[in-house]
Amino acid sequence: MRRMKAAVLGGTGMVGQLYVDLLAKNPWFKVAAVTGRSNVGKTLAEAYVGRGNIPEECKDLEVLPSDPSKIDADIVFSCLPSSAAREVEPRFAKAGFPVISDASAHRTWPDVPLIVPEINPEHLELIDLQKKNRNWDGFIVTTPNCTTVGFVMPLKALMDKYGLRYANLVSMQAVSGAGYSGVPSMAILGNIIPYIDGEESKVVEEPRKILGRLKDGSIEPAEIIIDATCTRTPTIYGHLEVIQVELSEDADIDDVRETLNTFTGLPQMLELPSAPKRPIHVFEEPDRPQPRLDADFGDVKGMIVTVGRLRRANRPRHYSFVSLSHNLIRGAAGTAILTAELLIATRRLSS
Amino acid sequence: MRRMKAAVLGGTGMVGQLYVDLLAKNPWFKVAAVTGRSNVGKTLAEAYVGRGNIPEECKDLEVLPSDPSKIDADIVFSCLPSSAAREVEPRFAKAGFPVISDASAHRTWPDVPLIVPEINPEHLELIDLQKKNRNWDGFIVTTPNCTTVGFVMPLKALMDKYGLRYANLVSMQAVSGAGYSGVPSMAILGNIIPYIDGEESKVVEEPRKILGRLKDGSIEPAEIIIDATCTRTPTIYGHLEVIQVELSEDADIDDVRETLNTFTGLPQMLELPSAPKRPIHVFEEPDRPQPRLDADFGDVKGMIVTVGRLRRANRPRHYSFVSLSHNLIRGAAGTAILTAELLIATRRLSS
Amino acid sequence: MRRMKAAVLGGTGMVGQLYVDLLAKNPWFKVAAVTGRSNVGKTLAEAYVGRGNIPEECKDLEVLPSDPSKIDADIVFSCLPSSAAREVEPRFAKAGFPVISDASAHRTWPDVPLIVPEINPEHLELIDLQKKNRNWDGFIVTTPNCTTVGFVMPLKALMDKYGLRYANLVSMQAVSGAGYSGVPSMAILGNIIPYIDGEESKVVEEPRKILGRLKDGSIEPAEIIIDATCTRTPTIYGHLEVIQVELSEDADIDDVRETLNTFTGLPQMLELPSAPKRPIHVFEEPDRPQPRLDADFGDVKGMIVTVGRLRRANRPRHYSFVSLSHNLIRGAAGTAILTAELLIATRRLSS
Amino acid sequence: MRRMKAAVLGGTGMVGQLYVDLLAKNPWFKVAAVTGRSNVGKTLAEAYVGRGNIPEECKDLEVLPSDPSKIDADIVFSCLPSSAAREVEPRFAKAGFPVISDASAHRTWPDVPLIVPEINPEHLELIDLQKKNRNWDGFIVTTPNCTTVGFVMPLKALMDKYGLRYANLVSMQAVSGAGYSGVPSMAILGNIIPYIDGEESKVVEEPRKILGRLKDGSIEPAEIIIDATCTRTPTIYGHLEVIQVELSEDADIDDVRETLNTFTGLPQMLELPSAPKRPIHVFEEPDRPQPRLDADFGDVKGMIVTVGRLRRANRPRHYSFVSLSHNLIRGAAGTAILTAELLIATRRLSS
Repeated sequence: MRRMKAAVLGGTGMVGQLYVDLLAKNPWFKVAAVTGRSNVGKTLAEAYVGRGNIPEECKDLEVLPSDPSKIDADIVFSCLPSSAAREVEPRFAKAGFPVISDASAHRTWPDVPLIVPEINPEHLELIDLQKKNRNWDGFIVTTPNCTTVGFVMPLKALMDKYGLRYANLVSMQAVSGAGYSGVPSMAILGNIIPYIDGEESKVVEEPRKILGRLKDGSIEPAEIIIDATCTRTPTIYGHLEVIQVELSEDADIDDVRETLNTFTGLPQMLELPSAPKRPIHVFEEPDRPQPRLDADFGDVKGMIVTVGRLRRANRPRHYSFVSLSHNLIRGAAGTAILTAELLIATRRLSS
Repeated sequence: MRRMKAAVLGGTGMVGQLYVDLLAKNPWFKVAAVTGRSNVGKTLAEAYVGRGNIPEECKDLEVLPSDPSKIDADIVFSCLPSSAAREVEPRFAKAGFPVISDASAHRTWPDVPLIVPEINPEHLELIDLQKKNRNWDGFIVTTPNCTTVGFVMPLKALMDKYGLRYANLVSMQAVSGAGYSGVPSMAILGNIIPYIDGEESKVVEEPRKILGRLKDGSIEPAEIIIDATCTRTPTIYGHLEVIQVELSEDADIDDVRETLNTFTGLPQMLELPSAPKRPIHVFEEPDRPQPRLDADFGDVKGMIVTVGRLRRANRPRHYSFVSLSHNLIRGAAGTAILTAELLIATRRLSS
Repeated sequence: MRRMKAAVLGGTGMVGQLYVDLLAKNPWFKVAAVTGRSNVGKTLAEAYVGRGNIPEECKDLEVLPSDPSKIDADIVFSCLPSSAAREVEPRFAKAGFPVISDASAHRTWPDVPLIVPEINPEHLELIDLQKKNRNWDGFIVTTPNCTTVGFVMPLKALMDKYGLRYANLVSMQAVSGAGYSGVPSMAILGNIIPYIDGEESKVVEEPRKILGRLKDGSIEPAEIIIDATCTRTPTIYGHLEVIQVELSEDADIDDVRETLNTFTGLPQMLELPSAPKRPIHVFEEPDRPQPRLDADFGDVKGMIVTVGRLRRANRPRHYSFVSLSHNLIRGAAGTAILTAELLIATRRLSS
Repeated sequence: MRRMKAAVLGGTGMVGQLYVDLLAKNPWFKVAAVTGRSNVGKTLAEAYVGRGNIPEECKDLEVLPSDPSKIDADIVFSCLPSSAAREVEPRFAKAGFPVISDASAHRTWPDVPLIVPEINPEHLELIDLQKKNRNWDGFIVTTPNCTTVGFVMPLKALMDKYGLRYANLVSMQAVSGAGYSGVPSMAILGNIIPYIDGEESKVVEEPRKILGRLKDGSIEPAEIIIDATCTRTPTIYGHLEVIQVELSEDADIDDVRETLNTFTGLPQMLELPSAPKRPIHVFEEPDRPQPRLDADFGDVKGMIVTVGRLRRANRPRHYSFVSLSHNLIRGAAGTAILTAELLIATRRLSS
């Protein structure tokens, strides 16, 4: 199989750089174009000055404007800010590009799938409807908010097995989730900020769509009640989440652990390049997972949701645990690339 | 009124130093003795070398052994480690000293009051029973775990007004809570540890005793279900707590805010020296309280529990908020001293 | 004496807020006006939302534009960014205001004094020349870069006593020195950046002017060779500086300590409100000063330069020590206010 | 070549764990034994609970006492605390083991080589003398203090080319250098400690031995004057060092850069497994190296000393730069293993 030509929209920032790095190492893709704004015309090496290492073969790529007519690519990844994504992504879809976006702009559109490949690959069927609705040659597929992913993965495993009524999330999020300059050091050194603007509504809504059922061309949201409190903490990579769930039925705690540990989905069955063998790992150690130690845990770095402190809570059918996921990989670039791999493997994209 | 002679058991550590500092500034007390272990025979100035500032008048105090026969004091504060407290505190109580302890050793004893002065001053009546039971001339009064205080204060306000069925706590605790050398920097820099050994059971049990009713000489625990997940974060002072409660009845959110903001207790009525005007302050700003900014908030530094992010949760009669309290002051030395002031003002201690 | 009306130009940022706080507590001043840019028209309470506490009497001040015709004040403090200062400060001076500026814009102008009140009060004589030169009714007086102050204070003490040939500085600077949003947390958490753009040339040049001699209406720079390496560290307040000096003659180390400890200047003699009793304190403890513990050391918070680790180096006449100074107080607002007090006390400003 | 059996004395701590990890990946060695104290009898998996990942093949190794009669190994690495090293290492040497130690206990013994493989491989000739002197079948070779290595490597390159008279070091050291529990978080969060007990004398003395000349069976120390100020900073891995040197002759700055960049030694010529292609890398970017970004720079992780900010200082023949080296790899385990490889490649050890 030849490697598909991938473009990264808004690819000169911190997350864009990660896309470039992951795509350059991925057997199915190669980086064909990177778009930017203030850096247009520079080489990637110039645009990235001073932050991390660019794959050798990408150093001389010229940063292009986010204009479909300027881009030669088989697939387009978008890590644009939401305001830009709102305008640019439809333009690319209209021009025939498959767009995989980790921006929030189109996640709630009824005909745009919001995908976690292990959870709801069948939602990709919306693509046909979307293309027809909008008379587009291409399409947009979105991936969730970085906090949603580490939350919804264990929810899915539990819902399938026991039914799920309620979930409460308290997140402790890494500063990288706000972009390179998003959190001033004056705000966060030795501190915690118990609020992230706009975050909680996403974390409350997105899981209901992701866990929803595709029925007659639209997604029926899962009937789960969710509460969320999102905080910013002085950690660098990895969103730690304290989760409490109410299941529909009582479950043995060892059975719950087994259910989480053995959860797999289509990416595992298809052995996609970015799919870890097991998307959830449950720690036995009482004090894990920890962001600095475990954000990169396992066989595919940054793609495993680690879980710990699994135990019964003190209300009937309630269970508590913590989860950790790498906010820039499983929470952004990694899940988007895994989604692209899924599109290829399920022949929705031909290489 | 003459200032009472106070002794601080185990007073050469970080919390002990804070007791000395607060007592030296307190109009009702003076520091008469400090006990230690490895530092016995040194002056305080020598024992404290390099950490903070000792009140001038205490610099030449000689560190004494924790032996009742060596101590001349009207009241004894204990910040001994629990294992030492288990042996030493009863010895002092037997020898006739009133002992106010922030150690966990005796908190669960049925005839030992576990006091937050704003909440359950009437539990001090257990003292008479205790003295009789044990044939002691003195007595032991305890104060709660540092995480319990910031949790139980808003619970009390809500319980009195609306009834309280359930409370869920997720704490983000400062490193000072583990003692000066308790958390290695290698463990916590840029990290969070989602577990604190032994902490959660205290936070689950203590509020039930504190909020319980004194009846026929014993305390009937409050019938509240509590869940807790305690984590350690790279903050220095101030335990931040994300709390969800289920009330017995539905409440208007403005009424809830008012209820918290106007909560007061006996220390306020008696205008005790260490009592803030209002023990709870509710922030309107969406991103407060924050540990580094707000641990010292208000008129009596470190004694106010600040609350923020107050809102309805998505289940009926459930409400969410965060609270912050200074773990070494409201969570230890400050509450113990306020308890002592209460004993004096209610004439359980004569100066 | 009535309190003078003070305006703070660019006063809605982090340093501006500190000026407002210090001026509100200062017996010789009251805050009459605060100017800003994007916040014009708001009250201070609105402009400062969420960061720290505004003095009660300043909450309703309306933020004004930085336009001399809109300001009613006896004295103007400027903490404008340098580019704005370049245009705005001369406008105010021309309009008759005495301007005390901690911006770098005019520090190198030959007829603008660069003042550390303890070191070179006689340089204020330049004011007359400046007014004449420029045909201004008012004038500009500048204070040094935040890193310069903690460096030049001990240099002055040593130069006066022993002569000074050379000084090498390695600074470890707090993030607050770059402004509230100046250092992203992604850049500095668990990290050190061994470079601060534009800083070293200031630290090398400014001491030569400050320590220079006023002669025939111009300042002859001190003949000292200086090297500097400036780094940014994950600390909040307080620039720590490792300094090595070559004196003109050999000196006994106890004599050097005494020389630093007993150094005083005109502000001490005049007992100015913001002057600490001793501007330099030498720690005996081997591991002090430390930024988190000692930035606020002493009788006037943030105004004392603390020194430690004083010892001979291994080349003849070379000595090593570390110094610490609060970068926002002694390094900015505090020194500017002390300079204003000096102007009043020496009758260059009439109240 | 068969892989040599390696034992790690004191191998259950943080550095020991790193030895095990590096040795398990090294083509010339395998981990045959690990000794400990409180963990004797446990498996490595049990001894290391909760910290990092043990190579699969080492998990079941039983921790042994540090007793030569219990150990079957071809070579012994020691990361014992110095007090233990003082007694244990000679016992192993006497029993015939080659001991490579990163402890300070024997570094100053005249017949014990203190080795940085790129710098002074010829000092290994002391081994014969040592064995004869002490009537030992084995021997002890030491490696330097973690701060010395990043300092002495550029010094060597400069000394060889230009002659070296003086070097001044200001270090900003990572907390891992003090052992897992060495630096309490209370001491270092948002802080810098300008003192590390016992460190500076090592950094001043060791380079003189390492850069010295072997002559008539003893090492004549290099005639260099050194000053050092060592500080502890809130960084995790990587000691950052600000260095100023006085050369014997004036040098062109580009020539100096080239001299550092092209420096190599015997390990590079012999292509030893742990030798990076170039042991020194000079950054062109003005703000590098940075500990969090660059401690692992290059082809052999943790083994490259990165240099930046190279420039002339303001005194004749003086030059300034910063260096960064991974304190646990280049500063401990990595240099020790590279030394062992050198012993093998130069047939001082037969496999």
